[in-house]
Amino acid sequence: MAATQSLELLIQALRRLPGVGAKSAARMAFHLLQHDRDGAQALSRALAQAVEQVRHCARCHTFTEAEVCAVCLDPERDATRLCVVETPADQAALERTGAFRGLYFVLMGRLSPLDGIGPADIGIQALLDRARDGVVQEVILATNFTAEGEATAHVVSEALRRDGLAVTRLARGVPVGSELEFVDLGTIAHALADRR
Amino acid sequence: MAATQSLELLIQALRRLPGVGAKSAARMAFHLLQHDRDGAQALSRALAQAVEQVRHCARCHTFTEAEVCAVCLDPERDATRLCVVETPADQAALERTGAFRGLYFVLMGRLSPLDGIGPADIGIQALLDRARDGVVQEVILATNFTAEGEATAHVVSEALRRDGLAVTRLARGVPVGSELEFVDLGTIAHALADRR
Ligand SMILES: [Zn+2]
Ligand SMILES: [Zn+2]
Repeated sequence: MAATQSLELLIQALRRLPGVGAKSAARMAFHLLQHDRDGAQALSRALAQAVEQVRHCARCHTFTEAEVCAVCLDPERDATRLCVVETPADQAALERTGAFRGLYFVLMGRLSPLDGIGPADIGIQALLDRARDGVVQEVILATNFTAEGEATAHVVSEALRRDGLAVTRLARGVPVGSELEFVDLGTIAHALADRR
Repeated sequence: MAATQSLELLIQALRRLPGVGAKSAARMAFHLLQHDRDGAQALSRALAQAVEQVRHCARCHTFTEAEVCAVCLDPERDATRLCVVETPADQAALERTGAFRGLYFVLMGRLSPLDGIGPADIGIQALLDRARDGVVQEVILATNFTAEGEATAHVVSEALRRDGLAVTRLARGVPVGSELEFVDLGTIAHALADRR
């Protein structure tokens, strides 16, 4: 598509977005330059700002702009319950149910041996350190009910039990094979109540 | 998903891309911040540079970084043939066939009465001015073979013929209902040779 270098660079940069191929990238670039230059500038600024500002919470590893996130700092939360999730999106899904008032630990990933993602990559040692603060009484595993999420739950569970911590898992009310982010809130709330 | 303002702004900005909904935008933002911050910075810079540098060729209206684009300035091109296309992507598809050595006029859109896009919006007057330079002998209509592209070709054709210009249309070797950008090169080359 591109007869100009700036346009070619833009199309190549858009292709780094997940799920965006060559044709989609060209259409996005054309749309932005022809119909939404304000949108292109807004996106440029938002990307730069997010890269600059967003980091990981020192306690739970979720995205935050502070040293420690608002949830971790909230004195109203029940610090005896620690819920382990794969991503901030999964954490947000649990928060929307309103059924959990404890704290979180966000793995920012899942075990995936085929992709070379092992226990060290998802920060299991950091989770063990976090869970051994003397306040946490129960660790609730809310990784996805996919093959990789189940494997992650298994490995995390073994490590935590070796440390003498009580470990539970969301009930299987969540349909097997699905990802938390796309499950309806009622099902998630039910699975949380029935954790085993 | 977003517990931070920068992340929320980024997700909203990504949603302005065509074909990107709330879930896709959140996944893109998460991917960039967790796995490809270099990609996020590259995209931020590419967007800013493209908005800054890319404008429309004064002669053919395609995207360019100069006052007049390289194709319009190329003395090797046959200035007696002017090919009218909807978008730079369509122009690129024709260029890839290697079957056309004339010049282009890029409408940067198509007639779409339902969306309120009329003749003035696609620069038909500018096309008439361009085609009446005394050098152009034939205007080849290569708008898409969709309902809107056909309507555009019809209106453009009427206006040009009223001015006494010879007007041809790509042969219907191109499957009806499809868009040029996605047609194989051989079919486009054939349709160009058989123009009527
Ligand atoms: Zn936190
Ligand atoms: Zn030009």
